[in-house]
Amino acid sequence: MDATVTHALSELRYALDTFYILMSGALVMWMAAGFSMLEAGLVRAKNTTEILTKNVTLYAVACIMYMLVGYHIMYASPAGGWWPSFGLMVGSEHTAADLAREGGPTFSKMADFFFQVVFVATSMSIISGAVAERMKLWAFLIFALVMTGFIYPVQGFWHWGGGFLKTLGFVDFAGSGMVHLTGASAALAAVLLLGARSSKYSKSGHINPLPGANLPLATLGTLILWLGWFGFNGGSQLSVSSVNAANTVALVLVNTNMSAAAGLLAALIVSRVLFGKADLTMVLNGALAGLVAITAAPDTPPMWMAVMIGSVAGVLVVFAILVLDKMLIDDPVGAISVHGVSGVWGLLAVPLSNPAASFSHQFIGISVIFAWVFGTSFVVWAALKYTIGIRVSREDEEYGLDLSECGLEAYPEFSANK
Amino acid sequence: MDATVTHALSELRYALDTFYILMSGALVMWMAAGFSMLEAGLVRAKNTTEILTKNVTLYAVACIMYMLVGYHIMYASPAGGWWPSFGLMVGSEHTAADLAREGGPTFSKMADFFFQVVFVATSMSIISGAVAERMKLWAFLIFALVMTGFIYPVQGFWHWGGGFLKTLGFVDFAGSGMVHLTGASAALAAVLLLGARSSKYSKSGHINPLPGANLPLATLGTLILWLGWFGFNGGSQLSVSSVNAANTVALVLVNTNMSAAAGLLAALIVSRVLFGKADLTMVLNGALAGLVAITAAPDTPPMWMAVMIGSVAGVLVVFAILVLDKMLIDDPVGAISVHGVSGVWGLLAVPLSNPAASFSHQFIGISVIFAWVFGTSFVVWAALKYTIGIRVSREDEEYGLDLSECGLEAYPEFSANK
Amino acid sequence: MDATVTHALSELRYALDTFYILMSGALVMWMAAGFSMLEAGLVRAKNTTEILTKNVTLYAVACIMYMLVGYHIMYASPAGGWWPSFGLMVGSEHTAADLAREGGPTFSKMADFFFQVVFVATSMSIISGAVAERMKLWAFLIFALVMTGFIYPVQGFWHWGGGFLKTLGFVDFAGSGMVHLTGASAALAAVLLLGARSSKYSKSGHINPLPGANLPLATLGTLILWLGWFGFNGGSQLSVSSVNAANTVALVLVNTNMSAAAGLLAALIVSRVLFGKADLTMVLNGALAGLVAITAAPDTPPMWMAVMIGSVAGVLVVFAILVLDKMLIDDPVGAISVHGVSGVWGLLAVPLSNPAASFSHQFIGISVIFAWVFGTSFVVWAALKYTIGIRVSREDEEYGLDLSECGLEAYPEFSANK
Repeated sequence: MDATVTHALSELRYALDTFYILMSGALVMWMAAGFSMLEAGLVRAKNTTEILTKNVTLYAVACIMYMLVGYHIMYASPAGGWWPSFGLMVGSEHTAADLAREGGPTFSKMADFFFQVVFVATSMSIISGAVAERMKLWAFLIFALVMTGFIYPVQGFWHWGGGFLKTLGFVDFAGSGMVHLTGASAALAAVLLLGARSSKYSKSGHINPLPGANLPLATLGTLILWLGWFGFNGGSQLSVSSVNAANTVALVLVNTNMSAAAGLLAALIVSRVLFGKADLTMVLNGALAGLVAITAAPDTPPMWMAVMIGSVAGVLVVFAILVLDKMLIDDPVGAISVHGVSGVWGLLAVPLSNPAASFSHQFIGISVIFAWVFGTSFVVWAALKYTIGIRVSREDEEYGLDLSECGLEAYPEFSANK
Repeated sequence: MDATVTHALSELRYALDTFYILMSGALVMWMAAGFSMLEAGLVRAKNTTEILTKNVTLYAVACIMYMLVGYHIMYASPAGGWWPSFGLMVGSEHTAADLAREGGPTFSKMADFFFQVVFVATSMSIISGAVAERMKLWAFLIFALVMTGFIYPVQGFWHWGGGFLKTLGFVDFAGSGMVHLTGASAALAAVLLLGARSSKYSKSGHINPLPGANLPLATLGTLILWLGWFGFNGGSQLSVSSVNAANTVALVLVNTNMSAAAGLLAALIVSRVLFGKADLTMVLNGALAGLVAITAAPDTPPMWMAVMIGSVAGVLVVFAILVLDKMLIDDPVGAISVHGVSGVWGLLAVPLSNPAASFSHQFIGISVIFAWVFGTSFVVWAALKYTIGIRVSREDEEYGLDLSECGLEAYPEFSANK
Repeated sequence: MDATVTHALSELRYALDTFYILMSGALVMWMAAGFSMLEAGLVRAKNTTEILTKNVTLYAVACIMYMLVGYHIMYASPAGGWWPSFGLMVGSEHTAADLAREGGPTFSKMADFFFQVVFVATSMSIISGAVAERMKLWAFLIFALVMTGFIYPVQGFWHWGGGFLKTLGFVDFAGSGMVHLTGASAALAAVLLLGARSSKYSKSGHINPLPGANLPLATLGTLILWLGWFGFNGGSQLSVSSVNAANTVALVLVNTNMSAAAGLLAALIVSRVLFGKADLTMVLNGALAGLVAITAAPDTPPMWMAVMIGSVAGVLVVFAILVLDKMLIDDPVGAISVHGVSGVWGLLAVPLSNPAASFSHQFIGISVIFAWVFGTSFVVWAALKYTIGIRVSREDEEYGLDLSECGLEAYPEFSANK
């Protein structure tokens, strides 16, 4: 083939792949709206403004911190290593001349940064739901600085950045572990130090339901996340410009969709059996659990296996939510169950469809991620707790965080508080 | 042209078309959020959780049933036939080698499945609005199994799967008939067997308005559907990788947008004249009517004709809603008028811009679709009615389906019921 | 290179660029939902249906008027001129043969129309927020006819259509001036003629806060706008099919995202310092200000400079909102500050990163846009004021525009008015 034709074809592939990564990244950014609506729908009216503020602000913090240090830590560190190099900023864009190199770039570096940065925000969003209705806004935001600038990128480097988990053979296609378990591990550390909402568990052990104020918003949030996940998983193939890559991306989207559908139905059936009702919040969490579980390997199972993976996740998540409540671990939106338990299940299920993965390596990866993120997070949360404090006063909790933290009610004309 | 260059170009076209189908499918999936918000906004607060549950669950049911049997019925059946073959699952993906074949595939089979499956869900979503506020959740879900696994795919095979309506020359580009009239026909059968909401029509014939609880959600739902329709109609060209295909896709998006805009304005003017007010729900239904009507042929009319088609649809839908109410056919969200009446109008308007279509063939297509879907649906709904029942008790209807079916209120802190 | 190969590659680039423009246009259309939700969230419950009606209707009006006359004025007028030619309709689509011409088209004309028409709607949406809660619906819609069919296209022609501002060297990549300052200028003219809401400023000069009814909707609207802006700015490059174009689009998305994030954080910090609270509405306006400011030149600054531009915009917008309030200029959603002040700042910042721009030319462009749009708008609003009137009666304002203009409450079951 003529060299100019070869180059023209490479240019077109670079352009198509860049565009595909950017559209995928835009869909993942949209997940910020998904988490915002989901969490705003599942908390009580008096804490809604605060959780919205938390969600939009953490997204912004993630963008800035990842630009400053996170991306460098994650992608400029030594191959196969376990300790990252430090430095600042993202580096320069590829040129047309770079394409001619053997193993040269196949899409824009800025597009890659865009796609990666929205993942960091996703991981951080998971935490805000678990600590809802009682954590101080500013303590949360300080934690966000450390999480998005340091804790997340270090474990990200270990696998996606080419560090020791990559070398080991740990497989996590789009982040059941690197994103979802990471978020859930940091959330668990926070909840253990923070304690339950004051009205959640009575002294006699009774669990007091504190229903969310706006279920249409929670449903909207779930459907936004579902849509965004097509970018999250679909974009993680990082290429669409060949027949094989395009086929894989298509399979990834189909499996993602199927696992979510199966998780939804499984949670519906389980909640119907357990409670006698079609509990919408369980149904939504079932869909999300299916999405989290398939994220570790949406590219290898056939469709029916994606249905199985999602179904198991949908069952697990209902029981996980019930068990955490029994253990008096108060997670208002079920984030630890959805992202932690399903994330672990998804990682363990990878060897079922991907012969390159092994159960033992998956187990090591899970342990490393959990140990690192839970451990470092616990230290940071504890440092915050014993300095500026992480919990609002009992009085602020009772009157709602919206007034104490934001000075604005979310629904000033509707709220039953009036 | 060099064979390797030819193949490389085919690969790139396959990749681009696959990506385009996937993005279009993602936009159609997003329509599930549109229907959820539209319907949640137009019912009363006490029935909101239930309609949300119905909407997300029917999407999941559609995915599973279409994977198991529907797709096979629709696309593996004999060309020109009227009776489908039965079988399971979707079949295997295309390979790079397949591209070399004369008439070989031009995009991924998994992408095709993804695009088709979201259409089935759309059709089913239409029904949930019409039966809102009084139907049993589980009866609805059982119907969804039959509709998405059998009723829809059979008529889908007749046209899009290459069956006898295709051979006949019936034209329905993206589904004014195959999706929207289909949904409306099944909805009409349901409503006739179900009866009106108990407080809708007084014995003296007075029509009691039961206003929706949340018009911002209804507006959001309409705008989500409008956006999703760019995927629905735009993706139905099934190719974007040549100048002609790209031009057609562009025309399709422009016409879709113009017809919606025209339908909106027509409904606004008609409702201003009839009621003296700018009735937002009519305005939204006008936009949706324009979208449904243009769907039969967004690829052939010039822009001004799309404006005409949408305008007529916007006028028709207002009168259709009023006439159905006079006939005591209670459709809380106007689904039968929007998707049925506008769907028929759109199909009949195809010959105006497409010389390949004829009025008589369009009429036959409409009759076949309506007879099949209304007939089979009526049988299934009747079977459900006289076994498990399709209507909730008078008491459950009064207190709201949210408590009886889901055990959760949608707005526990706001509702006037408190 | 073989002529057939050259042509095949041109076709593929044309297809890819057309698809990219269409997806970008779809994202910009989605901004209509963003403005609808943002404004619906920031007004009081009793004026919500009306502002939703205004938002969806203005979108439709923009589509029809721009098709009829606006696009022709903007793109069929003499190069370098200041007075447009008049005429109707969009013109015919490009053919495959046109591609062979030197300087021939690189994407579909219909796709271009689609992308342009949604920009007009965006500009018009800005106005509806500023005049909320007191303007007559029909006066607003008549203004929309003139704005979208004439006022906007004339200034659009001056720069994007190749008129005298283009020749002069004024630089506005995606419309900080052409879209946002334009909308804000027309809004300012309206507000000056319309006056403040009757309960906003007491005679003693006290500023009465009138908090928005639904902050989750306002947050959702902001995040929708943020997502849509990736199409707004990303699509304005008008090409993605080469390495350089793809890299630029990637940089545009990254800078857009970074400027929004920085604006958000800056507004958060300023409002924390000024008010002692994390004021969510200021935070959202900070993000929007960052988006508006970067829009003039998202393609040239490095990431850190986009952060600076956004930060300044976030600070400016908080003070602008406070200053306008002190001047008794009542803008319920902060539209004039977000789109006008930030738009001007963004235009003035272009020379910092783009050597082709100069401060003096930017200043001339700003002056021309403001003078034209403010002047013509003032005349039209004044003509409306002294004929049909632009302000609702005091009584209608008190009971809410929803009942007087639309005959429907937005939240009939929740509102505190009950």
